[in-house]
Amino acid sequence: MSPTPSSPSTSSTVTKIARRGLMLVLSSPSGAGKSTIAASLLRDDHSLGISVSVTTRAKRPSEIDGTHYHFKTIPQFERMRESGELLEWAEVHGNFYGTPREPVESAMADGRDMLFDIDWQGAQQLQEKMKADIVSIFVLPPTMTELQSRLHRRAEDSEEVIATRLANSRAEIGHWREYDYVIVNDDLGNAFEAVQSIVRAERLRRDRRFGMFDFVTKLIEETPVL
Amino acid sequence: MSPTPSSPSTSSTVTKIARRGLMLVLSSPSGAGKSTIAASLLRDDHSLGISVSVTTRAKRPSEIDGTHYHFKTIPQFERMRESGELLEWAEVHGNFYGTPREPVESAMADGRDMLFDIDWQGAQQLQEKMKADIVSIFVLPPTMTELQSRLHRRAEDSEEVIATRLANSRAEIGHWREYDYVIVNDDLGNAFEAVQSIVRAERLRRDRRFGMFDFVTKLIEETPVL
Repeated sequence: MSPTPSSPSTSSTVTKIARRGLMLVLSSPSGAGKSTIAASLLRDDHSLGISVSVTTRAKRPSEIDGTHYHFKTIPQFERMRESGELLEWAEVHGNFYGTPREPVESAMADGRDMLFDIDWQGAQQLQEKMKADIVSIFVLPPTMTELQSRLHRRAEDSEEVIATRLANSRAEIGHWREYDYVIVNDDLGNAFEAVQSIVRAERLRRDRRFGMFDFVTKLIEETPVL
Repeated sequence: MSPTPSSPSTSSTVTKIARRGLMLVLSSPSGAGKSTIAASLLRDDHSLGISVSVTTRAKRPSEIDGTHYHFKTIPQFERMRESGELLEWAEVHGNFYGTPREPVESAMADGRDMLFDIDWQGAQQLQEKMKADIVSIFVLPPTMTELQSRLHRRAEDSEEVIATRLANSRAEIGHWREYDYVIVNDDLGNAFEAVQSIVRAERLRRDRRFGMFDFVTKLIEETPVL
């Protein structure tokens, strides 16, 4: 990729500029590839953290409590919500989902980025509370036929659930205009590279790099030694 | 790069979404690497066009009229400026530089991107006239010592010109806050990849992709065929 590969000695001098973390919000209708892209991102970029949601839905056999979700009873969930411990929450298909506030605020202040694999309802609430930190991406399927086909291939849900999800997809897709970026996932490799580029670029935005002010102040004051 | 390389048949189905072009504005003090990065971008990405500036400065032996600049007399330049044919203009080191308007407006409407290797004065004028189309990047040197050293290595200018450029650099650097992105060029390969990511990301911004509205309208109306 690099036109002039850097030597180890050059790499070791790379200037570190302190910056605020960013909240990468990924949304899409079920089956558009959002979760696959999210998993690839986390595998590829170990500096990217994940927000572990709380939920009241039943744990699937493949899921681990505290890793995929914090599984809660409805009374537990309601206590967290009432005491302001949730940054956003939503009811989807009869279950509650929410994002704990504290880990996100710590990450932003420390310059750590977090990934949010959430639906449009959660994305809207995050936008209201943390607008400046959010980079939002909506992933669209190339066709509804392809979306239906992917839901069948996944084979994790029953036919009835697939039918419900497909019916909900049209309403979900209608929210695409609330996102900063929109990607059509007609090729998973391309879609993944697109999201990678967005993350790399957004990390370089001037308004996130609060350490740049000190860096430039020192730069201007420096007298060249040649 | 791609985790799941696409087959030729998949690539041929990639969805095209009409979008507006973008104006990639690159600025930096002399010697920070801006022109090297610009040359690498143009070599790497043949869809990126260049705005050929008009100038009244003397042609260097290595330069071609109409390719590097449109070389003009001062009366010719003033005629263009007065008749509104220039999108921006500036006087630098006693010479006039300007950007012809028509090629830029055509490119934006046709979804073609253009690169602008200009200083902060030109960037400010472009921002006033074409704000929504501009993606601006300021390239900083890692140290003033390194900046001076690069000016010496370039060896195209006299010692006197180098001294003038270095003295101007501090004032130029003070404009970094007027740009969307700021990059510290302590490794040319990294700086180039950073700019590439910014271009890829900005092309995916929802507000540039005016064809997305029609795409989503058709998507929602589609009945899956399975």
